[in-house]
Amino acid sequence: MKKRWLVCTDCRSSFPFRYDGGMCDCGGALLVQYDLEHLKKESSRDVWRKRPSTLWRYHELLPVSDTNAIVSLGEGWTPLIRMSRWEKKLGLGRLWVKREDQNPTGSFKARGFSVALSLVRETPASKVAVNSNGNAASALAAYAARAGLQAFVFVPRDCPGMIVEESVAYGAHAYLVDGLIHHAGQVVEDGKGEMGWRDLGTAKEPGRVEGKKTMGLELAEQLGWKMPDVVVYPTGGGSGLIGIWKALLELKQLGWAEGDLPRFVAVQETGCTPVVDAVRTKADRLTPAGDNTTSKPTGVRVPNPPAGNLILSIIRETGGTAVAVTAEEMEKAAGQMGREGISASPEGSAVWAGLLRLHEQGEIRAGEQVALFNTAHSLKYLPWPTPKGVPIIRSYADYRSLI
Amino acid sequence: MKKRWLVCTDCRSSFPFRYDGGMCDCGGALLVQYDLEHLKKESSRDVWRKRPSTLWRYHELLPVSDTNAIVSLGEGWTPLIRMSRWEKKLGLGRLWVKREDQNPTGSFKARGFSVALSLVRETPASKVAVNSNGNAASALAAYAARAGLQAFVFVPRDCPGMIVEESVAYGAHAYLVDGLIHHAGQVVEDGKGEMGWRDLGTAKEPGRVEGKKTMGLELAEQLGWKMPDVVVYPTGGGSGLIGIWKALLELKQLGWAEGDLPRFVAVQETGCTPVVDAVRTKADRLTPAGDNTTSKPTGVRVPNPPAGNLILSIIRETGGTAVAVTAEEMEKAAGQMGREGISASPEGSAVWAGLLRLHEQGEIRAGEQVALFNTAHSLKYLPWPTPKGVPIIRSYADYRSLI
Ligand SMILES: Cc1ncc(COP(=O)(O)O)c(C=O)c1O
Ligand SMILES: Cc1ncc(COP(=O)(O)O)c(C=O)c1O
Repeated sequence: MKKRWLVCTDCRSSFPFRYDGGMCDCGGALLVQYDLEHLKKESSRDVWRKRPSTLWRYHELLPVSDTNAIVSLGEGWTPLIRMSRWEKKLGLGRLWVKREDQNPTGSFKARGFSVALSLVRETPASKVAVNSNGNAASALAAYAARAGLQAFVFVPRDCPGMIVEESVAYGAHAYLVDGLIHHAGQVVEDGKGEMGWRDLGTAKEPGRVEGKKTMGLELAEQLGWKMPDVVVYPTGGGSGLIGIWKALLELKQLGWAEGDLPRFVAVQETGCTPVVDAVRTKADRLTPAGDNTTSKPTGVRVPNPPAGNLILSIIRETGGTAVAVTAEEMEKAAGQMGREGISASPEGSAVWAGLLRLHEQGEIRAGEQVALFNTAHSLKYLPWPTPKGVPIIRSYADYRSLI
Repeated sequence: MKKRWLVCTDCRSSFPFRYDGGMCDCGGALLVQYDLEHLKKESSRDVWRKRPSTLWRYHELLPVSDTNAIVSLGEGWTPLIRMSRWEKKLGLGRLWVKREDQNPTGSFKARGFSVALSLVRETPASKVAVNSNGNAASALAAYAARAGLQAFVFVPRDCPGMIVEESVAYGAHAYLVDGLIHHAGQVVEDGKGEMGWRDLGTAKEPGRVEGKKTMGLELAEQLGWKMPDVVVYPTGGGSGLIGIWKALLELKQLGWAEGDLPRFVAVQETGCTPVVDAVRTKADRLTPAGDNTTSKPTGVRVPNPPAGNLILSIIRETGGTAVAVTAEEMEKAAGQMGREGISASPEGSAVWAGLLRLHEQGEIRAGEQVALFNTAHSLKYLPWPTPKGVPIIRSYADYRSLI
């Protein structure tokens, strides 16, 4: 049986592995730890090369104890595309886009739920719930269907309609919450005891970050086990960025990747920029952005990311930064990526716009190797009407009164 | 330099390789032939295992002569998902779904255009055109963008609006043709001389079938180089089915796959069933279905598939069959696949409905191994309005008058 335990990224305390381990009492994020010394002695990165091309090729670094319980729809091992024309234009060494839009359910969220649902199958739970800006909802819906579990998803009322449509098509019980992602989270929090939902929200359990971590493992493998200089990622709840950082750190500890950790750049959209604000003011703790967001309903609209302090410390320690881009810049960026044959979601477009901004400000140097992440597929964000019959609620009491 | 030539599947004549080789004067389809004896002596299937996970791992069996010219967006090597619950329900040995929806541009058409555009780059052409029911148009658009070429796409007026949207997002010049796919083909035919378009329509050039062939190569590799008993595929122009058959035949000739060729089953939708009609009447030549189709505007609505006779001979020689399913059966099937976590296009749903029909009719036997293909992603078919500003034309003269 694989050794796995939890460590708080803030106070460094260790805890036995728990399926519902998310945050430490001290407020830090609990992340899964493995016996890397043992792995280093017993194995090598070369075993992965011969494995199937899903994220499960890295199962030694994933928390599942029973590989037969794995819930897979073919997630991960997404293409890493080189953007040669833009490399020349910007004077970069290498410019890569990792096409997370090519995952099942069209976003990187598939990774997290493949791992989270595999963990749920190690428990007796039969109902799973999540609050989400959208992509996490449809990913949960698909993986719960695959696992034979019931899914309950709670998304802001202005969530892209097509993503709600998608969740329903996978058989989920979907609800629109009149508020933001944390209001939706409150519904799950209030209902999970009575309803028997396992809460798979951001930082509520250990599987999703581990699943997202595989973006970093793949990036390193696809780059021939060399670190890039800069990683640019759209940041909402933050577990994507945390996952990639954790992956590269583990590879470094294993001695399986060469070079220093890349500088991590978080991209947000003007109108909801808690991370950018904290980085600009050099704060070491994150202040929630409040509910008066004016940014679009995308995955990066998260006023109060649960593991905000960890995000800040990653940016600080790697010498990275955070940038806010406007809706106009994002739209232009989507067009530029489309002209290269890549379907970029608003979040992926924000990353591209962020790159151009960094370049303009001289924060990326000539000859550097830069990895961007296009986290979802653009078509999911067309202004499709929310399917009729999906109830709008404000609270768990509302939910309770409907069922 | 790789040896490659063309062979007519009807009269068996050989010709030197041509970039615009599609049909033989006798009316048969021209397919690319390689020196398999040489390949068998010089190489083995094991070299492929270590290659990157795109369809280009099979480049020895693809017609490109210059691997530096390859136009790639990460196509191919799609997941093969086992449907265990349904295996039990239907008493099958193994039931697999190949998730072609996971390709760039959300359909298997990406494969054909990755290869076709790579071939175009071996020529001086700078403009490419295609007639399409939709998915081929958006795939051409993306790959042309990636290759730095101009794309012109002509689709029936009732083509799913989102696919037109997608084509435009990749920078293609898109036109709606008031008619069916062959009317759109006539526009390209009439215009290609004057406009300098390279025609990439079905059976107009050798690359697309070869690209689609990789579905069969992957299927065999993913099954451990064993043939399944039955392959079920949605059939429109037919080059998907032809490609898979050609792949398995080549592997057999190389001695690199065990077992007999599977039985090939073509699935069409009631209302446009030229292949099903010919199979039912045991005709050895295909009669066009005429323009009064009543089926939905999907990829299988092709009244007169250019290589229809080859499709019939594949079905006949492998002991396969063809089935027509109704729109209602397809809708029910989409729901059933959704409940398994898979986003099935109408064509993929038709295949699932076809499987249920075959099972009911006793044409699939207990314990058999069956491979289905979900050829595209469902969300592309939501009734999204065609983007404004895309002109509607009836003929090349109309096109000419607009530019
Ligand atoms: C497409 C997309 N990109 C980025 C994000 C932000 O990711 P994270 O919450 O891990 O920071 C999300 C989250 O919903 C998303 O859906
Ligand atoms: C999703 C989908 N499935 C199936 C087909 C039919 O494929 P073929 O024309 O190769 O028979 C098409 C063609 O447009 C398609 O788009």
